[in-house]
Amino acid sequence: MASIFTKIIKGEIPSYKIAEDDNFFAFLDINPNTKGHTLVVPKKEENKIFDLEKEVYLELMDFSYRVAKAIEKTLPCERVGMSVIGLEVPHVHVHLIPISKMNDMRFVEKESLSKEEFITIAEQISGNFE
Amino acid sequence: MASIFTKIIKGEIPSYKIAEDDNFFAFLDINPNTKGHTLVVPKKEENKIFDLEKEVYLELMDFSYRVAKAIEKTLPCERVGMSVIGLEVPHVHVHLIPISKMNDMRFVEKESLSKEEFITIAEQISGNFE
Repeated sequence: MASIFTKIIKGEIPSYKIAEDDNFFAFLDINPNTKGHTLVVPKKEENKIFDLEKEVYLELMDFSYRVAKAIEKTLPCERVGMSVIGLEVPHVHVHLIPISKMNDMRFVEKESLSKEEFITIAEQISGNFE
Repeated sequence: MASIFTKIIKGEIPSYKIAEDDNFFAFLDINPNTKGHTLVVPKKEENKIFDLEKEVYLELMDFSYRVAKAIEKTLPCERVGMSVIGLEVPHVHVHLIPISKMNDMRFVEKESLSKEEFITIAEQISGNFE
């Protein structure tokens, strides 16, 4: 069965899209740790990141770097943190999170945003994506 | 002033080394989330990962992939998680953590290991590094 991320990529579930190319898709996490928390996923489903062929993994990391740069340009933060866990959704996803303190990386405190805020942030990050 | 990781790389502070090449160094985290928690660092000091030139960043990710594969071969875990935060030590470090549950990625619960255990684990992971 298609993962929730595959449904998002296909547009069957709506998302706040940041960027995509033939192989990767970036969109805002709907339950963000902080404002601008973004997920980058490969379009081809794979459960675990280190099960990706190294070439695909490096392309994913390359795409994630470009998204992280766009996030840094867009949102005030000490830095952008990166985390790949994947215990909940079995489809590789790179968390890129604008952080200022350790708790921003712990997935415990969550940010509540309106639909309008999500749309604005996605447009801003997307506009800074190169 | 040299970072604590630069002192480790230079051997001024002892560490449980996993692997190194001309540009990168991997060793066990001395305060691990779980058994086998490893840090991968570039030998050239840089504070933030996305300030690395993309080429160097991708080489770091490549090296980290190889270390993660060695960890997976060595330790029982659901998968290896990856995290880059860096709010405490201003020298890029990739956390590679054998995980089975979400808390293993939160840097809250810590594993206590004897010196002998650290040595054994480092030797085992190192032996599986390709």
